[in-house]
Amino acid sequence: MRGEIITTGSELITGRVADANACYAARRLHEACLSLQGITILGDDLHLLTDAIRRAVHRSRFIIITGGLGPTDDDLTVAAAAQALNLKLFLDEGLLARIRRCLAERHLPWQERYARLALIPQGATVLDPGGRACGFSLRHHNSWLFFLPGVPQEMRLLFDAFVLPALVNLASPGQCLEHRTLHLFGLNEAQLQEVMAQLAPFSQGVAIGYYPNFPETHLTLTAIGPSRPALTASLDRLTQLLAHKVGDTLIGPEADTLEELVGVRLRDLGLTLAVAESCTGGLLCQRLTSVAGASDYFLGGVVAYSNQAKIDLLRVPSHLLEKSGAVSAPTAEAMAKGAQEVFHASFALAVTGIAGPTGGSPQKPVGTVFLALANPQGVDTRRLHFHGDREQVRILAAQTALDWLRRELSHAARLSGH
Amino acid sequence: MRGEIITTGSELITGRVADANACYAARRLHEACLSLQGITILGDDLHLLTDAIRRAVHRSRFIIITGGLGPTDDDLTVAAAAQALNLKLFLDEGLLARIRRCLAERHLPWQERYARLALIPQGATVLDPGGRACGFSLRHHNSWLFFLPGVPQEMRLLFDAFVLPALVNLASPGQCLEHRTLHLFGLNEAQLQEVMAQLAPFSQGVAIGYYPNFPETHLTLTAIGPSRPALTASLDRLTQLLAHKVGDTLIGPEADTLEELVGVRLRDLGLTLAVAESCTGGLLCQRLTSVAGASDYFLGGVVAYSNQAKIDLLRVPSHLLEKSGAVSAPTAEAMAKGAQEVFHASFALAVTGIAGPTGGSPQKPVGTVFLALANPQGVDTRRLHFHGDREQVRILAAQTALDWLRRELSHAARLSGH
Repeated sequence: MRGEIITTGSELITGRVADANACYAARRLHEACLSLQGITILGDDLHLLTDAIRRAVHRSRFIIITGGLGPTDDDLTVAAAAQALNLKLFLDEGLLARIRRCLAERHLPWQERYARLALIPQGATVLDPGGRACGFSLRHHNSWLFFLPGVPQEMRLLFDAFVLPALVNLASPGQCLEHRTLHLFGLNEAQLQEVMAQLAPFSQGVAIGYYPNFPETHLTLTAIGPSRPALTASLDRLTQLLAHKVGDTLIGPEADTLEELVGVRLRDLGLTLAVAESCTGGLLCQRLTSVAGASDYFLGGVVAYSNQAKIDLLRVPSHLLEKSGAVSAPTAEAMAKGAQEVFHASFALAVTGIAGPTGGSPQKPVGTVFLALANPQGVDTRRLHFHGDREQVRILAAQTALDWLRRELSHAARLSGH
Repeated sequence: MRGEIITTGSELITGRVADANACYAARRLHEACLSLQGITILGDDLHLLTDAIRRAVHRSRFIIITGGLGPTDDDLTVAAAAQALNLKLFLDEGLLARIRRCLAERHLPWQERYARLALIPQGATVLDPGGRACGFSLRHHNSWLFFLPGVPQEMRLLFDAFVLPALVNLASPGQCLEHRTLHLFGLNEAQLQEVMAQLAPFSQGVAIGYYPNFPETHLTLTAIGPSRPALTASLDRLTQLLAHKVGDTLIGPEADTLEELVGVRLRDLGLTLAVAESCTGGLLCQRLTSVAGASDYFLGGVVAYSNQAKIDLLRVPSHLLEKSGAVSAPTAEAMAKGAQEVFHASFALAVTGIAGPTGGSPQKPVGTVFLALANPQGVDTRRLHFHGDREQVRILAAQTALDWLRRELSHAARLSGH
């Protein structure tokens, strides 16, 4: 069963915004084992839009059309659909009432042009997520058409609530779909494919997708079948087997990001964290504080870009900086210890390195990074070498530091029975 | 003169990656006053691709086709073009030699399948950027077709070097194109449109585009004419008039980002900077250090998430925190002074606020942010209120802080004659 997507909007063909709806729908459809023939992006042009819909119903079982459902003159999707499919438009009284109610709730005055929003082709079914923008669906001969708003949040809501379930049921009547996305750090796509090949006996009937998402790799698992509990059990088992193979390379299961997981663990264990950054320049702090409620466990950090700041704020001995240099294991260790002390933190993470493009040497080329992790028992250091430009080195350094802490905290949580 | 874009690749219709090429080309074309009818995205399917090319040459003056030019079996663009336009393929010896040279330079062994890369339709002209992936162009009746690689960097290089100049010349023979993008912060699209309306007498013949780019607004100016010096002069004049109207709301002209401009000014003036952050949690430091060479003027920062850290590291008096609270003008002021002192910096910027989603009160709702800027003469504070989610509040707070510093430094530079 193949389909296609048509998205409309002059902002798309002038490059004013990148199309997000088609990409979202394409990914979700692919995860559900439904395939697309193509995506057509058009401006607000009645003739081109009508022609595209007419051609689509001839070759596709399903057609998803986004955008052009608003109340202004450049919203032409409904008119194009009526023309392409030779259908009359009628005023849906229920839809009209919903629109009036919505406006009233937001204290917006009624305007005549809003009545256009309730005009839909005969035979159409309104897709109403409740209190948000509606769409509609339509059967034409052997094809199903779904008309969705162009605002990405509204489109996604309707797509997930109505379109995907309807298509899964159309492709496999009486079946349901179970899907999950797993996040991994430290295995590339090829390595992950090899691991999944070893698990092939346990992944029968599960569609697997690989999505590189720098610096992580994302894996999607999709199963379709008559019994949701059986599907859930099958994906649970596969996830467990994968976790067994790859260990802590798999991020989760309580959260999808390293900073969230670190937060969950620190809160569970009643511990606190401080950070000392040089080459990452605040990126580590910024990721940790992007989690709401981070102040429960995150005390703060020092971005010590100059040597004097390392000495004054992190108590790094000046002779150490002279002897070993700012980018060295002893300095990283002293930075972590210093941050632990000055913030009175249980754990402290330190990063110092050469992000580039200049500042490298034969002994310490661009991309050289030292990490240090201070825990209540002592300090460990690591030397790493990352490839990429300045921004990539910074991202990899921050990610690797967070990952190290996450693994250490997971270990601590297992020991303490959390 | 209207055209269209066809991009191919199964990674696009499975949502594995978002299409970047069509959006880039669409924007560049729009800036050059060339318009698109639509964009078609297809998987690696010979039949669909052939059909799309055949239809395109019937309705479009120019067709830009990206992707599917590689050496593997799923690279079908050349075969589809030959089939659609009824052309024979021939082996371009010059192209073959270039491919061999390229491989040799990278110490890659020759493989038979690379010969496919030199097979192009009869009548095609190779587009060679020198040492990088090539494309080709082709005239078919009244249409021009441009075939470009799918790797975005390669595609952009060829698009800018060959496709855009050729199309501008085709649309307006003997004319050239002058384009620039201006970045503004503090004026929204509607306000900017009003300003540009006042400048209408001076913008005749200049195409104007507005691109909201949170938290900034970007403005594009494009002029087409026979004399490049005249075009440059006309855009220079318009830019000057705009700068006169909006003042420092226009970012630049020496750099496009606030962090780069702050860096340029600090370096010129021989001054240094330190930062004290609370709600922005490292974002300000991260932006400042994303500029290569920032260590010349950026000494470091303290992310003081806990009150104790504000007291211990930034010397904020504890009675001040008790009396005024962590989110207050006196605390922001003390943080800036503290950062200036402990880092021995000429300037220090401090941010404290409530990013949300919790922590607000009737007196200080979520989105309340206090900024302080310490200069060698003293400290100023500002109270702001931003709307948006946690991430947006953080971004706006960091942007506003940097913008304040940029304006102050620009003022200082003007006074000192820099």
